[in-house]
Amino acid sequence: MSIVGKKFPNLSVNAMNDLGDTFKVNVLEEAQKNNKKVLLFWYPKDFTFVCPTELHAFQAALEEFEKRNVMVIGASCDTPEVHFAWLNTPKDDGGIEGVTYPILADSNRNLSSRLGILDITGESYDEETGDVTLEGDNVTYRATYLIDEEGTVFHEGVNHMPLGRNVQEFIRLIDAYTHVQKNGEVCPANWEEGKDA
Amino acid sequence: MSIVGKKFPNLSVNAMNDLGDTFKVNVLEEAQKNNKKVLLFWYPKDFTFVCPTELHAFQAALEEFEKRNVMVIGASCDTPEVHFAWLNTPKDDGGIEGVTYPILADSNRNLSSRLGILDITGESYDEETGDVTLEGDNVTYRATYLIDEEGTVFHEGVNHMPLGRNVQEFIRLIDAYTHVQKNGEVCPANWEEGKDA
Amino acid sequence: MSIVGKKFPNLSVNAMNDLGDTFKVNVLEEAQKNNKKVLLFWYPKDFTFVCPTELHAFQAALEEFEKRNVMVIGASCDTPEVHFAWLNTPKDDGGIEGVTYPILADSNRNLSSRLGILDITGESYDEETGDVTLEGDNVTYRATYLIDEEGTVFHEGVNHMPLGRNVQEFIRLIDAYTHVQKNGEVCPANWEEGKDA
Amino acid sequence: MSIVGKKFPNLSVNAMNDLGDTFKVNVLEEAQKNNKKVLLFWYPKDFTFVCPTELHAFQAALEEFEKRNVMVIGASCDTPEVHFAWLNTPKDDGGIEGVTYPILADSNRNLSSRLGILDITGESYDEETGDVTLEGDNVTYRATYLIDEEGTVFHEGVNHMPLGRNVQEFIRLIDAYTHVQKNGEVCPANWEEGKDA
Amino acid sequence: MSIVGKKFPNLSVNAMNDLGDTFKVNVLEEAQKNNKKVLLFWYPKDFTFVCPTELHAFQAALEEFEKRNVMVIGASCDTPEVHFAWLNTPKDDGGIEGVTYPILADSNRNLSSRLGILDITGESYDEETGDVTLEGDNVTYRATYLIDEEGTVFHEGVNHMPLGRNVQEFIRLIDAYTHVQKNGEVCPANWEEGKDA
Amino acid sequence: MSIVGKKFPNLSVNAMNDLGDTFKVNVLEEAQKNNKKVLLFWYPKDFTFVCPTELHAFQAALEEFEKRNVMVIGASCDTPEVHFAWLNTPKDDGGIEGVTYPILADSNRNLSSRLGILDITGESYDEETGDVTLEGDNVTYRATYLIDEEGTVFHEGVNHMPLGRNVQEFIRLIDAYTHVQKNGEVCPANWEEGKDA
Amino acid sequence: MSIVGKKFPNLSVNAMNDLGDTFKVNVLEEAQKNNKKVLLFWYPKDFTFVCPTELHAFQAALEEFEKRNVMVIGASCDTPEVHFAWLNTPKDDGGIEGVTYPILADSNRNLSSRLGILDITGESYDEETGDVTLEGDNVTYRATYLIDEEGTVFHEGVNHMPLGRNVQEFIRLIDAYTHVQKNGEVCPANWEEGKDA
Amino acid sequence: MSIVGKKFPNLSVNAMNDLGDTFKVNVLEEAQKNNKKVLLFWYPKDFTFVCPTELHAFQAALEEFEKRNVMVIGASCDTPEVHFAWLNTPKDDGGIEGVTYPILADSNRNLSSRLGILDITGESYDEETGDVTLEGDNVTYRATYLIDEEGTVFHEGVNHMPLGRNVQEFIRLIDAYTHVQKNGEVCPANWEEGKDA
Amino acid sequence: MSIVGKKFPNLSVNAMNDLGDTFKVNVLEEAQKNNKKVLLFWYPKDFTFVCPTELHAFQAALEEFEKRNVMVIGASCDTPEVHFAWLNTPKDDGGIEGVTYPILADSNRNLSSRLGILDITGESYDEETGDVTLEGDNVTYRATYLIDEEGTVFHEGVNHMPLGRNVQEFIRLIDAYTHVQKNGEVCPANWEEGKDA
Amino acid sequence: MSIVGKKFPNLSVNAMNDLGDTFKVNVLEEAQKNNKKVLLFWYPKDFTFVCPTELHAFQAALEEFEKRNVMVIGASCDTPEVHFAWLNTPKDDGGIEGVTYPILADSNRNLSSRLGILDITGESYDEETGDVTLEGDNVTYRATYLIDEEGTVFHEGVNHMPLGRNVQEFIRLIDAYTHVQKNGEVCPANWEEGKDA
Repeated sequence: MSIVGKKFPNLSVNAMNDLGDTFKVNVLEEAQKNNKKVLLFWYPKDFTFVCPTELHAFQAALEEFEKRNVMVIGASCDTPEVHFAWLNTPKDDGGIEGVTYPILADSNRNLSSRLGILDITGESYDEETGDVTLEGDNVTYRATYLIDEEGTVFHEGVNHMPLGRNVQEFIRLIDAYTHVQKNGEVCPANWEEGKDA
Repeated sequence: MSIVGKKFPNLSVNAMNDLGDTFKVNVLEEAQKNNKKVLLFWYPKDFTFVCPTELHAFQAALEEFEKRNVMVIGASCDTPEVHFAWLNTPKDDGGIEGVTYPILADSNRNLSSRLGILDITGESYDEETGDVTLEGDNVTYRATYLIDEEGTVFHEGVNHMPLGRNVQEFIRLIDAYTHVQKNGEVCPANWEEGKDA
Repeated sequence: MSIVGKKFPNLSVNAMNDLGDTFKVNVLEEAQKNNKKVLLFWYPKDFTFVCPTELHAFQAALEEFEKRNVMVIGASCDTPEVHFAWLNTPKDDGGIEGVTYPILADSNRNLSSRLGILDITGESYDEETGDVTLEGDNVTYRATYLIDEEGTVFHEGVNHMPLGRNVQEFIRLIDAYTHVQKNGEVCPANWEEGKDA
Repeated sequence: MSIVGKKFPNLSVNAMNDLGDTFKVNVLEEAQKNNKKVLLFWYPKDFTFVCPTELHAFQAALEEFEKRNVMVIGASCDTPEVHFAWLNTPKDDGGIEGVTYPILADSNRNLSSRLGILDITGESYDEETGDVTLEGDNVTYRATYLIDEEGTVFHEGVNHMPLGRNVQEFIRLIDAYTHVQKNGEVCPANWEEGKDA
Repeated sequence: MSIVGKKFPNLSVNAMNDLGDTFKVNVLEEAQKNNKKVLLFWYPKDFTFVCPTELHAFQAALEEFEKRNVMVIGASCDTPEVHFAWLNTPKDDGGIEGVTYPILADSNRNLSSRLGILDITGESYDEETGDVTLEGDNVTYRATYLIDEEGTVFHEGVNHMPLGRNVQEFIRLIDAYTHVQKNGEVCPANWEEGKDA
Repeated sequence: MSIVGKKFPNLSVNAMNDLGDTFKVNVLEEAQKNNKKVLLFWYPKDFTFVCPTELHAFQAALEEFEKRNVMVIGASCDTPEVHFAWLNTPKDDGGIEGVTYPILADSNRNLSSRLGILDITGESYDEETGDVTLEGDNVTYRATYLIDEEGTVFHEGVNHMPLGRNVQEFIRLIDAYTHVQKNGEVCPANWEEGKDA
Repeated sequence: MSIVGKKFPNLSVNAMNDLGDTFKVNVLEEAQKNNKKVLLFWYPKDFTFVCPTELHAFQAALEEFEKRNVMVIGASCDTPEVHFAWLNTPKDDGGIEGVTYPILADSNRNLSSRLGILDITGESYDEETGDVTLEGDNVTYRATYLIDEEGTVFHEGVNHMPLGRNVQEFIRLIDAYTHVQKNGEVCPANWEEGKDA
Repeated sequence: MSIVGKKFPNLSVNAMNDLGDTFKVNVLEEAQKNNKKVLLFWYPKDFTFVCPTELHAFQAALEEFEKRNVMVIGASCDTPEVHFAWLNTPKDDGGIEGVTYPILADSNRNLSSRLGILDITGESYDEETGDVTLEGDNVTYRATYLIDEEGTVFHEGVNHMPLGRNVQEFIRLIDAYTHVQKNGEVCPANWEEGKDA
Repeated sequence: MSIVGKKFPNLSVNAMNDLGDTFKVNVLEEAQKNNKKVLLFWYPKDFTFVCPTELHAFQAALEEFEKRNVMVIGASCDTPEVHFAWLNTPKDDGGIEGVTYPILADSNRNLSSRLGILDITGESYDEETGDVTLEGDNVTYRATYLIDEEGTVFHEGVNHMPLGRNVQEFIRLIDAYTHVQKNGEVCPANWEEGKDA
Repeated sequence: MSIVGKKFPNLSVNAMNDLGDTFKVNVLEEAQKNNKKVLLFWYPKDFTFVCPTELHAFQAALEEFEKRNVMVIGASCDTPEVHFAWLNTPKDDGGIEGVTYPILADSNRNLSSRLGILDITGESYDEETGDVTLEGDNVTYRATYLIDEEGTVFHEGVNHMPLGRNVQEFIRLIDAYTHVQKNGEVCPANWEEGKDA
């Protein structure tokens, strides 16, 4: 069930940043209280190969997002301690040193299970004992959410595990949505800021 | 619940093309039987403003998709008869004359409700009479699915009503996924064909 | 279950007219607030063959209905946008240009499903996934409702898909019912206004 | 729920004719075994005022129906004995002497309750005793069914109590349907045999 | 479950008399408000053979009942209109002309189903469709109830269809019960008024 | 629910006779195996006042019943031992010495509860403990059943506690039913053997 | 489930005495209101062999019980009328003439079923009809209850049908319990009044 | 619910004897396999005051029981180890040294809970946590069972905690029951071996 | 389900000490009211071999525990009487003479079943009778709980039956936890008081 | 519910070792197939403070465990990739470089949830949406399991978060259990290998 057109879930999640602080982030409140758009992107696991390139790519474009009044938030199901260890690992060693935006540590899966983006492909139930056994690693796909200043989701996208994201496309979607917000128009296909709508 | 990483639903839906033929399309079978990728894109309604620009944009890029062994399919919840009337309306009159790929006519919402992309924002139930009343027009958001040759979904994206899609981004995702298929690698952020992975 | 002798459902539905305005119509309120009778007729689909002849036939008799204080309303499950496109299509091209009464756009099927006139001939339920698949196009039969000034249905009739309606028969039924209202009598078979009851 | 487009219920019901014989009639089988169309009309009660005019009107047109290979069957919830008494009552005394087609005596309401045409407007349930009390006389509205040679209903119509039927309209509907059966066409509005479709 | 020793059901039922008036009768209230005993007898159907002899027999003894402060009420499941037609049919033609006590017209079976005296010998339920089909004509057996001034049933008897009743026996039972009421004694077997108890 | 027109329950019950033998009686089998009619009459309690007069009255008419091939059986909820004590008590002392037909001892109420003739006027349930408390003495009313040679009940009658039965009326009913069996006719009101039907 | 250590059930039951009065007895209240102990003994049936010897034995020891402030009550499921008949039967004829303590007439089994002492050895349920059939005569075993001044049961014993009771043993138990009440001690095995505890 | 007249539960329980052996005892099988009667007596707790006097009293009468082919078995809910410790404690120290019959150690309460003789006077259930809390020590009352050679219980008796048993009374009951077995008679009140029945 | 990190269950249990007093202990309240830590250790049964060595070992270290403000409580499912007998048995005879800390007597298993430490290895349910039969002796494993001053469990350990505990390890755990409480640090592996953390 | 005395759950879990291989480990099978004991210890999170000291402590004692035929396995809910990153972090930097035993990566919590050792302290359910929100980080406490060669758990212990374990105590427990296995004895409190049992 898509949540586009609906409010983002109202839920606080642990997060870590490059200073080593553990704090709570409620994405919906971040958007509404700060009157900002939010780009929230999920990746499967810390300390893997594709993931750091995505984290660095969002970091590289961070100024572009901030110019557009967009807060960038990363997210995985690892713990804050593991995020911090990764944040302290140099880029050349496969780390994400230099990333400054917060990263959610959804270790209890409260948010990712509500979004339905965990890689659980099956669930077997043992009637005799009542035990449930999950199939899959219980980590997230590469899901991205664009949320407006009122907390409404205006884009959601999910990529399969091995497929990295295109940061420019999210900037285009944000610009198009901002254009719609300002001009009360709709944005046709392939629209780009500065080109005719 | 995302369907990335899962098979696309196995379901036949009515479709219309520019010849005026009504026929059945099963997206999963199209991919598996023809050993092709499929790009399936949904738009809310025939005879509206944003939608035709998207349909023309996909038509303009059709050769690019075919070169990549990708079948393009459009879809809305209108009837085949309405699709045909729109296909016969000139582009200048807001029509989609010139579109040659098939368009699903999911008037019974069998496929769109299973994908969870209808704009139903509420459902009220009258306990006394048993009547159910829906809120929303019961038409789809702008959802796009990329499906591989085995019928597995490798990307899904949903845009809010007023937000047109970027055809080039889908070509990038298809190229990246094909790269992964060929090279057994993963594709990092912002990957593009021809650039280093 | 027939609804003759009962109030028409209390429900607002989108509608379109020849001016291109989308507005809400609540059939029950139209009758009660305006102290009018209502003739509501459903047809399966816009841009088909039988349907426009019926829409033109009701238009041709519109004066007769108005003389009798009867409001005529058409209805299908197409969207307002599709109704408007059809209203702008000349009669010679299979369009309904010239129709001036409102046409309901019951795209969410709230009203037609409550009346039980959709062509759903079956429904299969997949116990494992919880998915429901409908058989049929989910469009309406040719159903007609005559409603009095208090909102009570005094005639309902349903024709199979290929069978057009007889406008004169509805005028006869309206006259007979009005005769009963005025004279407190019952109207025997084949009764016609001006003939002896 | 309309039964147009579906088979008529497969059910045997007591019937009476002018010879005083009580016999069983299964409307579905009558149509299928004899390869005939059937016109089945229900009226509320024997020994009332409107009803005999309808019964005489159908009798007067009986030859017209037979020419079209249509079997006419009347029906109410009275017993066969009451039907027979009424059949033996002269027309001038409010009787139906002279009627020769069979009349169903659905005293157990098996068929009328399945068709949903009984005038039950409410049902109260006493939780303490388990007793159910019906509101209404438990007799039928003036419902008419046109059934084709395969037992499929192609028209259903229900008139409120005081409103007599128009026999000619049923002949028109039968002719139109027969025209569709023969020519594979659809019949537009106001179609009449001999006029251009 | 016998209702002897309990109050008669508190329920209003349509009734007809020889004047052609349709009115409501609540047997329990008739007894209590008028401080009378009531003899209520049910017969299966109007316009049959045994039944009129019973109705005439109760009429012939009406004076005897009235002398004993007993109200006589007949009852079947036919409609008031049918009762009136039968009341207007001469005795020689199998009618009940001359009957002056009221006759219940329990066409909705509210009272007879609560008393459990309908000839329903079975009930089949179609699980797929939810339809219920009754076996039997849904008319009553020859049941008789004697009710005292407080509405308490002091005798109930049910005869199989072909078995007429003995009016004198009911007079004997009424006299015996009155004797008990007056003398606070019990009445032994074969007791008759005037004979020693 | 009346059991007239249905088979008598198939159940064995303890019985006692004047010889002091305890034996089992299955009323249904008695009728069917011996090809006899059965008159079964219930009384409330042994060693009371009304009851012995009824038992003696049936004894006095026993020859009449036997001539008609009718077996007479008495019944109460007392034990066989109590029946025997009563059978040994002289008539002058309120006993039933001289009675020769069998008397059922339905101390476990298996048969009387199935017939619904126990004087239980209420039942209270203690939710906390699960205890059920009955109101009433749990003895039977004066119920009488006439059963034919196939075990079908053709008359049932229930008298309130203080009201003795009329043996002649049962003989009349048996004669009438036998007349119907022989002549295939129905027996009108007040019919008596030898009088014209 | 033993009720020793719990209050005796709070329930009124019909009773009979040698004066022929029917009255209500609530065992719990008898104990509490009169500040007495109660010995309640059940026997299976009136007019049998073992039972009268037990009733006479308790009568013979009545003075002993009264001296100890103990009320003796007998009980069976027979009616008060049967008890009275037995009370009027001389001892030599198997009767219990001379018994002066009250005898419960638990004909509705309210008390005996709560105590769980009825000889029901099985219960079969007919799913089709909902009928329950009991196995056993539904009379009690030889159960004895000793109840103290607060209504608490301090001994319960049940003997199989053919096994008579020992009145002296109950006196011993009462004396022992009284000893405990007075001295706050426990009574060892084989304790007897006057012997050392 | 009394188990007199039923088979003793078929269940194996741990037991201890004076040799210190732990072994299993199935009371039902002991009776049936050895063709013996069984006297089973329960006491609340080892190492208390009343209990040893009872255990010694049964030991003192053991020869009397054996002469009558009766096996004596003691029982409490203590463990075999505790029984053994008590068996090794001299009588003068409150022990049961010298007892030679087996003592059940029903620590899991399988048998005592089935017999319903545990002193649980209440049970509270915490809905939130699902926890059940018992009131009472979960030890048994002083219950005694006499079981015949077929395993049928012919006497059960339960004494409140402080009330010791009378060994002679059990011998009397055994003799009486044996008398019934031999002579096919019933044993009247106060019967004793050698006295006239 | 571990209860570490949760409050200890709030429940009163019988207990015994060397003075022979039976009293109630609520472990949670002991900790909270006295602002003490509690060490609660369970052993399977009194009067066995391993168990006394454990009880003596805890007694020997009692001063060490008290120095650390820790209350020691033993526990088994035996009764207070059995505990007292064992407390009076000299150490050389396998007794626990000299033990001064209280010992819980959880004979109703209220606390041990809530902790889930009973040796019940199975439970069979007889559907016909509703009887539940447990497998296992229904005694506890060697479970130990360390509880802090707020009643929170900070260690739980369970040993299989034959495996005695190490008192020193519990002292180490208490010291470590106290260290954490004082210093707000965590205690690494093998930490010991006085060694560097 | 303790699992001491039961088989360890039969479940395969991902694991990582110092070579960087991801492989599956089924603890039960490891014990049974290799005929070894297993020590399985859980810690809350990688990259924290207490945890590495425990991992190093077990590594330091690895030879001792192997000598005793014991396999050591670590476990947390982090992913294999995070384990590997930690294994490659030098001890001085808070890493676990040098650890050679396998570490389970129970990211889907299949095993830890079955053992009941996750720090979930609450679970709130939103009835309207069906969403479940967990309280706690969903990581494990410091739980340790000792499993014998047949897969039976003979010790389980759980420490609160900040409390490190004592490796020597586990060696003691293993030696004691091995002693029991060899000598068929039980091991008293404070037992140590080489000291007298």
